[in-house]
Amino acid sequence: MEVEQVLHMNGGIGEASYANNSLVQQKVISLTRPIREEAITKLCYNKKFPRSLSIADLGCSSGPNTFFVVSEIIKAVENLCRELNQDSPEYNVFMNDLPGNDFNNIFRSLDSFKNELEKNSCGPCYLFGAPGSFYGRLFPNTSIHFVHASYSLQWLSKVPEGIENNKGNIYMSSTSPLNVLNAYYEQFQRDFSFFLKCRGEEVVEGGVMVLTFLGRRSDDPSSKECCYIWELMAAALNDMVLEGIIKEEQMDGFNIPQYTPSPSEVKLQVQAEGSFTVNRLEVSEVNWNAYDTNWNVTDFESEEFESLSDGGYNVAQCMRAVAEPLLVSHFGEDIIEEVFSRYQSLLAESMSKEKTKFFNVTVSLTRNA
Amino acid sequence: MEVEQVLHMNGGIGEASYANNSLVQQKVISLTRPIREEAITKLCYNKKFPRSLSIADLGCSSGPNTFFVVSEIIKAVENLCRELNQDSPEYNVFMNDLPGNDFNNIFRSLDSFKNELEKNSCGPCYLFGAPGSFYGRLFPNTSIHFVHASYSLQWLSKVPEGIENNKGNIYMSSTSPLNVLNAYYEQFQRDFSFFLKCRGEEVVEGGVMVLTFLGRRSDDPSSKECCYIWELMAAALNDMVLEGIIKEEQMDGFNIPQYTPSPSEVKLQVQAEGSFTVNRLEVSEVNWNAYDTNWNVTDFESEEFESLSDGGYNVAQCMRAVAEPLLVSHFGEDIIEEVFSRYQSLLAESMSKEKTKFFNVTVSLTRNA
Repeated sequence: MEVEQVLHMNGGIGEASYANNSLVQQKVISLTRPIREEAITKLCYNKKFPRSLSIADLGCSSGPNTFFVVSEIIKAVENLCRELNQDSPEYNVFMNDLPGNDFNNIFRSLDSFKNELEKNSCGPCYLFGAPGSFYGRLFPNTSIHFVHASYSLQWLSKVPEGIENNKGNIYMSSTSPLNVLNAYYEQFQRDFSFFLKCRGEEVVEGGVMVLTFLGRRSDDPSSKECCYIWELMAAALNDMVLEGIIKEEQMDGFNIPQYTPSPSEVKLQVQAEGSFTVNRLEVSEVNWNAYDTNWNVTDFESEEFESLSDGGYNVAQCMRAVAEPLLVSHFGEDIIEEVFSRYQSLLAESMSKEKTKFFNVTVSLTRNA
Repeated sequence: MEVEQVLHMNGGIGEASYANNSLVQQKVISLTRPIREEAITKLCYNKKFPRSLSIADLGCSSGPNTFFVVSEIIKAVENLCRELNQDSPEYNVFMNDLPGNDFNNIFRSLDSFKNELEKNSCGPCYLFGAPGSFYGRLFPNTSIHFVHASYSLQWLSKVPEGIENNKGNIYMSSTSPLNVLNAYYEQFQRDFSFFLKCRGEEVVEGGVMVLTFLGRRSDDPSSKECCYIWELMAAALNDMVLEGIIKEEQMDGFNIPQYTPSPSEVKLQVQAEGSFTVNRLEVSEVNWNAYDTNWNVTDFESEEFESLSDGGYNVAQCMRAVAEPLLVSHFGEDIIEEVFSRYQSLLAESMSKEKTKFFNVTVSLTRNA
């Protein structure tokens, strides 16, 4: 099965849907707002307020976050227009994700998105779905001004090859052989480099990209910072192997197509590829249990804050929204409830002992002349 | 309930889905091919092969026809390129329908569409979903070269107002009072005129539109040519009113938001609005039962031709794919099976007595300088 056919968040609006389990992603988006605002200012001064501004959100998924970033970007541009006594531009907004994403769900909230823009007297906005892999061309030459991607670029185009000896693991881990770590890194280099090349062709000179990876601060690719959350899922699966519920060969053949880069790895690849210049590069952190942070609750729907307590459940649901399609395509439907029930216990146990966090690497880039 | 929220073809791939009941539409698309080919030639000579060609299919729905027209348009452009020794352009393809349309279904056939273009060595193609009503702006100013719409523009933006006295009917009919006929016509005029104004802003100078309406040849708006198929549905509903299954008030409050114009009505509106010039205006015909025509079977999937016999069933399914969401939103789910069972009998009876046809009005337009 091709990764691209199974790599999508859980659709719909059920208990384990991405739509209901995307608070971590929402927090990350809020944390990185200042970086986007700086990039927008840079863009608008560079391009002297183009009359038509094209914005692409890559890996937009579907759910409450979907229009969050785009609305914020448009409002930031409108504020700049007012400050500088400029007319509002026309906006072309492209929502990208793989063709398996729930675009119907996005389009059905289109009216409320447009109404909000109208209430704020923004310029006219045309919204499009852009289905396809961002590891490939998505847009015409030199047609895009602002690219945003949050928590999507850590997904690789495929599981790295030659990692059959990553036994007992489903991602890089401290027990992974060196060839596994290398294979993951090389897949990241190839994928991110091709991503930069494609975007380099699509983004106008002076255009900007703000990309946030699920990543790590450490130079060690098997650091607990990025690998521990998958190690716990591997532990749940390994227990089920021991009990004969999952076959060992099946477990050995399962690896997550992800790479959680460090800031320097991101920077290196941008410099090596050459289409873009790094303006800003930052690491931020967010608790595994997104409900458990000092946080400005009023930014979000209040009902999402009802259950602040059950960290294990919250994190398991959050990971389930992300990983269920991958697990189902490899192991089948039948084991899913059991995996996530065990995973939830392991998560709860580890969260009771230590402060567990996701690390986010955000880079702001300008398209070179 | 707003018309736009319930006006969509039956989604999915079930027995009564539009995807499985769109042979009439497919035939109409084939019948009107020469008109599109002429328009493409006109466009490409006018614009001297733009490097980037933007095509919009308005009311694209989802199903086997969805990529049919766009593929054909692209191949026609490629043929012209070869004839004239020109490089292929980049294609931007915008698939438009109301936000309730099943865009997920479209996007999941994206790969096979792109593979087919690649096999034919066409220029690169970027495909986008453009959700929204075509009775409003959908695209940036002067951004589109070719607009296609087939069997979508007969749908009005809403049921005309002031037609409460259209008792016993669900559309215009020979028994409709004059004010009802006038209200329908005026709604068509307002809607089509606004459509032309919006497209006038979006289409580049020299750009073309080929629009096919479900329409009529006759000057009489209540002609059997366009009204009889709805009269039979009204007869099924009226029988159910007599039997007490449907309340009379409910029946009286139901009217189909459609207008089936004559060629001269279409022409008049284009001339009155002023953004476009008519190049060609034609009427074509297709049997109600699309399986029952002299037809080049090899153009289509062969399994669609398995059941050539049961005309009543075929036409009822075809109308169900189109009208079920409207009926359900007004009358509820419960009566649907019964309505279509009765409708099928009435259709079969009338088809056994006479040759029943849909009439199509196709107009080819150029954007004025």
